[in-house]
Amino acid sequence: MRRLIAVTILFLILNGLKAQDTGKIIRSIFDEALTDRTAYNNLEYLCKNTKGRIAGSPAAEKAVVFLKQALLNAGADSVWLQKVPVPKWVRGKEKCRVTSSVHGRKDLAITALGLSVGTPEKGLTSKVIEVHDFDELKALGTQNIQGKIVFFNRPFDNKAVNSFAAYGGAVNQRTAGPSEASKYGAVAVIVRSMTQSLDNFPHTGVTRYADNVNKIPAVAVSTLDADLLSQWLKTDASLSVHLVSTCVNYPDTWSYNVIGEIYGSVKPNEFITVGGHIDAWDIAEGANDDGGGCVQAIELIRIYKKLGIKPERTIRAVMFMNEEISGTGGKTYAEEAKRKGEIHIAALESDGGVMAPRGFGFDATDQKLEKLRSFSSWFESYDIKDFDKGGGGSDISPLKGLGAVLIGYKCDAQKYFWYHHSANDTFEHVNIRELQMGSAAIASLIYLIDQGDF
Amino acid sequence: MRRLIAVTILFLILNGLKAQDTGKIIRSIFDEALTDRTAYNNLEYLCKNTKGRIAGSPAAEKAVVFLKQALLNAGADSVWLQKVPVPKWVRGKEKCRVTSSVHGRKDLAITALGLSVGTPEKGLTSKVIEVHDFDELKALGTQNIQGKIVFFNRPFDNKAVNSFAAYGGAVNQRTAGPSEASKYGAVAVIVRSMTQSLDNFPHTGVTRYADNVNKIPAVAVSTLDADLLSQWLKTDASLSVHLVSTCVNYPDTWSYNVIGEIYGSVKPNEFITVGGHIDAWDIAEGANDDGGGCVQAIELIRIYKKLGIKPERTIRAVMFMNEEISGTGGKTYAEEAKRKGEIHIAALESDGGVMAPRGFGFDATDQKLEKLRSFSSWFESYDIKDFDKGGGGSDISPLKGLGAVLIGYKCDAQKYFWYHHSANDTFEHVNIRELQMGSAAIASLIYLIDQGDF
Repeated sequence: MRRLIAVTILFLILNGLKAQDTGKIIRSIFDEALTDRTAYNNLEYLCKNTKGRIAGSPAAEKAVVFLKQALLNAGADSVWLQKVPVPKWVRGKEKCRVTSSVHGRKDLAITALGLSVGTPEKGLTSKVIEVHDFDELKALGTQNIQGKIVFFNRPFDNKAVNSFAAYGGAVNQRTAGPSEASKYGAVAVIVRSMTQSLDNFPHTGVTRYADNVNKIPAVAVSTLDADLLSQWLKTDASLSVHLVSTCVNYPDTWSYNVIGEIYGSVKPNEFITVGGHIDAWDIAEGANDDGGGCVQAIELIRIYKKLGIKPERTIRAVMFMNEEISGTGGKTYAEEAKRKGEIHIAALESDGGVMAPRGFGFDATDQKLEKLRSFSSWFESYDIKDFDKGGGGSDISPLKGLGAVLIGYKCDAQKYFWYHHSANDTFEHVNIRELQMGSAAIASLIYLIDQGDF
Repeated sequence: MRRLIAVTILFLILNGLKAQDTGKIIRSIFDEALTDRTAYNNLEYLCKNTKGRIAGSPAAEKAVVFLKQALLNAGADSVWLQKVPVPKWVRGKEKCRVTSSVHGRKDLAITALGLSVGTPEKGLTSKVIEVHDFDELKALGTQNIQGKIVFFNRPFDNKAVNSFAAYGGAVNQRTAGPSEASKYGAVAVIVRSMTQSLDNFPHTGVTRYADNVNKIPAVAVSTLDADLLSQWLKTDASLSVHLVSTCVNYPDTWSYNVIGEIYGSVKPNEFITVGGHIDAWDIAEGANDDGGGCVQAIELIRIYKKLGIKPERTIRAVMFMNEEISGTGGKTYAEEAKRKGEIHIAALESDGGVMAPRGFGFDATDQKLEKLRSFSSWFESYDIKDFDKGGGGSDISPLKGLGAVLIGYKCDAQKYFWYHHSANDTFEHVNIRELQMGSAAIASLIYLIDQGDF
């Protein structure tokens, strides 16, 4: 009995000490993140010197070189590049002029959609028909659409509290609209930009042509100009648009994921991945989407090394290439992990911007979810309170097949679509403290997951 | 027994219906707030047409006129102005030139502190001594300080997760620094701006001279220029500063609180106040501090009227004058309420900016706090999760003496001090959805408090 009491007391003391240590370590992670400007400076470099780093572009290659060096500077035990097949799509000249006998002339703010085919060099001229969804398109049919430019103009539902839900409710116009319109003989597509903002930034993003459709040029128009075009059409249905967009799809090429790791001190053959994506749309600096996610992953390495945190598992900071167009970076990373028989216990992605931090979303079994939620008490004093079911990210999703728990870092997304895929996604819209708080939250959660059993 | 069962069932049904209604009403409040631009447009007007509306200024009077009309437009049952005594302090010419035999010359970005006395018209020239707190000042003593400009340069503690705590840890340099320095014979004070940001915006704010001290001129310097001045001083302690700041304190004058109400349908003699402050620093548009709070209070009136919500108590939207300098608007409002024997059950202030919404802080008895916390379930699906002890606001604090529960609306404050009291506090830094979410949260909480017993 005495022995049992002694053992129990020892257990309680050790657990108490460990809890004390854990609290101290998390505090030191936050202190380090909140008082260091490396991640912010790295983000500035990415934004200002590798702007428009869409996969296959020279800017993307420059970003790869920079991020590799940044990982080395952070003190990673090893840093390497992982070859990734990527598409190569290059924007051309762009112009969209409306001519109306009633309203006059107006050049609209447009941007070609990624993977779109181009117009002829001199452009094309056509009447325009406005629709809001594919049912309306179907009802109009070939007799009304043939030879025209289809203008998809369904706005975000502003009543949706979750901005990503609003995006989800509108984005099929961009991804599938050109294919759908082509089925009825449309010659081109203009899509209202995917944002709640009323401004003059057009937002690009990928479109995907279905098999067996005639590929027609597709562009996004700013929301203000979408409203104007809609207004003009109401009183002049016969106005015409002259559209020039000489973008080109080249053969696939190669790029890289950039990977840095800290070797596990206890279970080096178990892996935890923390990542973001390198590529950003060619018109954007890619600060919120997703330079922030990249520099936060590097920051974890820097913080652990600076504080002497030796993880039990191998921790990888992975900067994925080509999230925006076809996700080959994430797929390649998971395929290689599978081929090598790696054990991946968790993967975290930061690709929801770097606004005010909220917490995490989890894609995990109930048992793991319970464990993850138990960590929330460590974050209360840092105002990180969301530990919710449902999360992940497109680059890490292929790791689910390997049994990894998927985690999405969450920040407040009310204004995310002000920036997303547009020239408005600039470094200036990122606040250093919001970035730092996110880095600290991510590094702390990974520290907790890495401790002991998970 | 049958009767008891029947009554119980009826009770459960009615309660169920009420809960259903409550959910629907809150949903309709959010829907209305998220799809209407009135509050945002009102904020734009305030920022762009009544910029620099510090109490006693012509811009403040213009804001009073505008807000009164905005309340009428919102449909308030009655709108009136409440006379408030206010100081009248007017900024003059400002210049701060450092001359160093080692480093050369540099004009620093400065701004006079509110209520500061001015320098002579031609300015004053003096050596500078850098200190970080009042102990250091005391240790240096008159022999080292006499005749010099004291440069307070203690930065925010970036390790503080709560930005207001970081502010609280630094702001005595601004409020009391000039008085303290004067005690040792300083001729003027330069204070590092109250922000974590490293930029070139100087941040003003009120300073308060103690009785019986010689009032000396006081200015804030931008953080980047504070760092530069500190750097220069390290290698040239004998550099001099020529300071011009010809601000003037005039005799007190009069201004107004702007008040609009919806009459209570059941208990018209019980009041719930929702407010923000009209005045903004003379160098600022006052978007986050505190135009947002004003337009959110008006928005509550507009939403209730639009949706036909008839509150049980009388709900007042109060826009207070002169929060920034001496809080006479809040004091006058509470004094008048006391004189009239009004019953004030709750007061909510939105004066922490209009960034990403988080929730509320409460200054209430444990019993009331429990009731307030029970409301949190209504807000979960809107991502409004903070229902914490501790809150209020300086304008509503005098209502505590009348027994009112005090409530502070909270949004994420990581970047609040990027704007606070500076020319960087502009309309462009407010996101419409973050403003709208706040309006909806406030209007919903007041709706819940107003229902039945509280």
